Amino acid sequence: MYLSKLFIPITKDLPAEAKIKSHQLMLRTGMIKQSSAGIYSWLPLGFKVMKKIEQIVREEQNSIGAQEMLMPTIQSSEIWKESGRYDDYGEEMLRIKDRQGREMLYGPTNEELITDVFRSSIKSYKSLPQLLYHIQWKFRDEIRPRFGVMRCKEFYMKDAYSFDLSDEDAKKSYNKMFYSYLKTFNRLGLKAIPMAADTGPIGGDLSHEFIILAETGESKIYADKNIFEIDLTQYKLNDASLKKMRGDFTKIYAVTDEKYKKEDFDKNVKKENQMTTKGIEVGHIFYFSDKYSKPMNCLIDDQNGKKNSVKMGSYGIGVSRLVGATIEANYNNNVMKWPKSISPFDVVIIPSISKNNKENFEKGVQIYQNLKKQNIDVLLDDVDENMSNKFKKHDLIGIPYQIIIGSKSDGDKFEFKELNSKSELLSLEKIKSKLKI
Amino acid sequence: MYLSKLFIPITKDLPAEAKIKSHQLMLRTGMIKQSSAGIYSWLPLGFKVMKKIEQIVREEQNSIGAQEMLMPTIQSSEIWKESGRYDDYGEEMLRIKDRQGREMLYGPTNEELITDVFRSSIKSYKSLPQLLYHIQWKFRDEIRPRFGVMRCKEFYMKDAYSFDLSDEDAKKSYNKMFYSYLKTFNRLGLKAIPMAADTGPIGGDLSHEFIILAETGESKIYADKNIFEIDLTQYKLNDASLKKMRGDFTKIYAVTDEKYKKEDFDKNVKKENQMTTKGIEVGHIFYFSDKYSKPMNCLIDDQNGKKNSVKMGSYGIGVSRLVGATIEANYNNNVMKWPKSISPFDVVIIPSISKNNKENFEKGVQIYQNLKKQNIDVLLDDVDENMSNKFKKHDLIGIPYQIIIGSKSDGDKFEFKELNSKSELLSLEKIKSKLKI
Repeated sequence: MYLSKLFIPITKDLPAEAKIKSHQLMLRTGMIKQSSAGIYSWLPLGFKVMKKIEQIVREEQNSIGAQEMLMPTIQSSEIWKESGRYDDYGEEMLRIKDRQGREMLYGPTNEELITDVFRSSIKSYKSLPQLLYHIQWKFRDEIRPRFGVMRCKEFYMKDAYSFDLSDEDAKKSYNKMFYSYLKTFNRLGLKAIPMAADTGPIGGDLSHEFIILAETGESKIYADKNIFEIDLTQYKLNDASLKKMRGDFTKIYAVTDEKYKKEDFDKNVKKENQMTTKGIEVGHIFYFSDKYSKPMNCLIDDQNGKKNSVKMGSYGIGVSRLVGATIEANYNNNVMKWPKSISPFDVVIIPSISKNNKENFEKGVQIYQNLKKQNIDVLLDDVDENMSNKFKKHDLIGIPYQIIIGSKSDGDKFEFKELNSKSELLSLEKIKSKLKI
Repeated sequence: MYLSKLFIPITKDLPAEAKIKSHQLMLRTGMIKQSSAGIYSWLPLGFKVMKKIEQIVREEQNSIGAQEMLMPTIQSSEIWKESGRYDDYGEEMLRIKDRQGREMLYGPTNEELITDVFRSSIKSYKSLPQLLYHIQWKFRDEIRPRFGVMRCKEFYMKDAYSFDLSDEDAKKSYNKMFYSYLKTFNRLGLKAIPMAADTGPIGGDLSHEFIILAETGESKIYADKNIFEIDLTQYKLNDASLKKMRGDFTKIYAVTDEKYKKEDFDKNVKKENQMTTKGIEVGHIFYFSDKYSKPMNCLIDDQNGKKNSVKMGSYGIGVSRLVGATIEANYNNNVMKWPKSISPFDVVIIPSISKNNKENFEKGVQIYQNLKKQNIDVLLDDVDENMSNKFKKHDLIGIPYQIIIGSKSDGDKFEFKELNSKSELLSLEKIKSKLKI
């Protein structure tokens, strides 16, 4: 893609309404545009990042055997009356009357709808366990939407649901998701800490939040640094190993301020390992047993032909929120550097362009075509602008690797720079091998 | 995937509410489940097909230089008041009041919203042409939703928008989309005919529908058979070639009954080439110039610094509808055969399983693992059921290729069957090469 063709409305002004750095950056680099309070369009740059995050989430769901499906955004109020949540859920639920006066709503979450799908589909323990997920837009009518995509009204979320015959089996499903979440955040280049959490309006008695570190986070967190020393690759996708994994993680002290007590912190964590920082919630998992299946009469025949309410859990990852959260975690000193796995482009070519000298630009085009053939997703900055402005702009766009074609180029060697590092002169072959690692 | 693990609630009963064969098939094979009138959940089998269609649509949009983005489902009424359509659009628009009493709506289409995005982003002719698209859920509050996903309320649609400085340039964009649509439907295994069409509530004076042949279609069509003889590969992605392409297609007689006149048909089409059949609309493209940009004040500076309303077109493909339409076009004599490009699986292995003999099943597992390693997406029917029932079931699921492991297997040769053809005994290597073509 040539930068001049990319639909990327960059603005130089710091948007007044944006209070946190991810919101500022996303507006300045034209990743999103607000269409109304708390509702955004995703422009090509932001869209590419979100899609890459979505794909990693999907792959890690598939890898534990979860099956993808898709529930609609508009739901009937009937199933919410069955579960008893229609009245409980406050004004954050966007309630709608259709042309025939029926009470509908824009789904803020899908426990009821998936239970309805499940009860009409599966009747026997033989078809269990089941893990189903979808990645779909949700709506919560926030009274004060803020922080851009971090607390908006229409948001993109992966929500998964597990179905098991017994509490014991259900916890195996829970552990699988726990594992999948840690792998997902690793691949996104994020340090995520699982923390025991309250269950809130979803319900149940077992729940973990996944919180990534970011100074601008909403939650204050207290943790033992050792939690980052656990090597995830030591665990295997089997029940015993995953049980050990959850044990290993949860025995290390890590809490949000809701559960923080100074004496516990001091008792459990050595002074030098005490970490007090802030974080952002990017995932939340719940085990709530028969909270929905019982009132909604979602029954499974067991081995003896006896009917049991199926045991369920639910598992959410905020996909659109992760775009903002990743920026909060990675944007420092006016430089954004996307993790390689989700960068909108693999590399940007920045030629020094002047009216009298087209040589650099032409070299840039050659390199561009060469990299394209190798399936490297490359952006060519063909905009007529001085280099200092270009560098400032690319510090914000955040593509982690740059090929700079200017005074320092030397024959077949080009200036190659990783953001936040010094540049080096390398041949195109060396550059390619660096990009492919 | 093992069939016993796939979330695929197959029913033997013909669903009473389903009047057309695609709706019947999708319910019987558990591709979809209705959640409320005209609103469906997409279960894994249907979801896989829809995603494959979506990906082909996406690739063919990208191949003409269109850029993907994503607009939200919920829009403010303000922009619809600017364009003047808020009152025009009838009760099919799902109107919503949020908790603060603001008038919102669930987008039935996106001309207003994209114009709003565009006017705040692009100001100069230098950034034109632009082609933007998104693939997003839409809502139309149909008074009588019917025919399953063919005429439902919440539907998945690709809509693209073009932006040009002049009418002349805009028609070049129109032709690109015309080309992209024909390529898209070809890849989906569908015979699509472009037909001059009325513009309806979108507006404008140039419009084509793309209609695929299906006996159960809603539109009656009259066409010259020669339209299927045009070889699309002769055209190139440049303005002159695409202008010729549109000319070649549109000079051949093809109309729906709205525009049909017997004397024209007889005058223009030789008796032996006259085709009278039914069809389903799967795409619709519009050129409407400044119909939205003018009232919404979306202005572009031209070469002389003069401000002009940008010239726009819009281009829709019904992605969820295409799932149903493909079934209507391909499901005959109780056999559904998916086009290879969008089949939910590449091949199904059907071993004859009995309690006393596990040999066939074990062979099936070996072949399954072998094919998996080659990245062939294979389904293994591990359900304990007689072969006659299995065949009936797979006639409905519609995976185009079967490997049957039963009495006819002979050493290292297995029965390989393409649906609607006779089976043959082939080695696994031969089978693999057939699947990969």
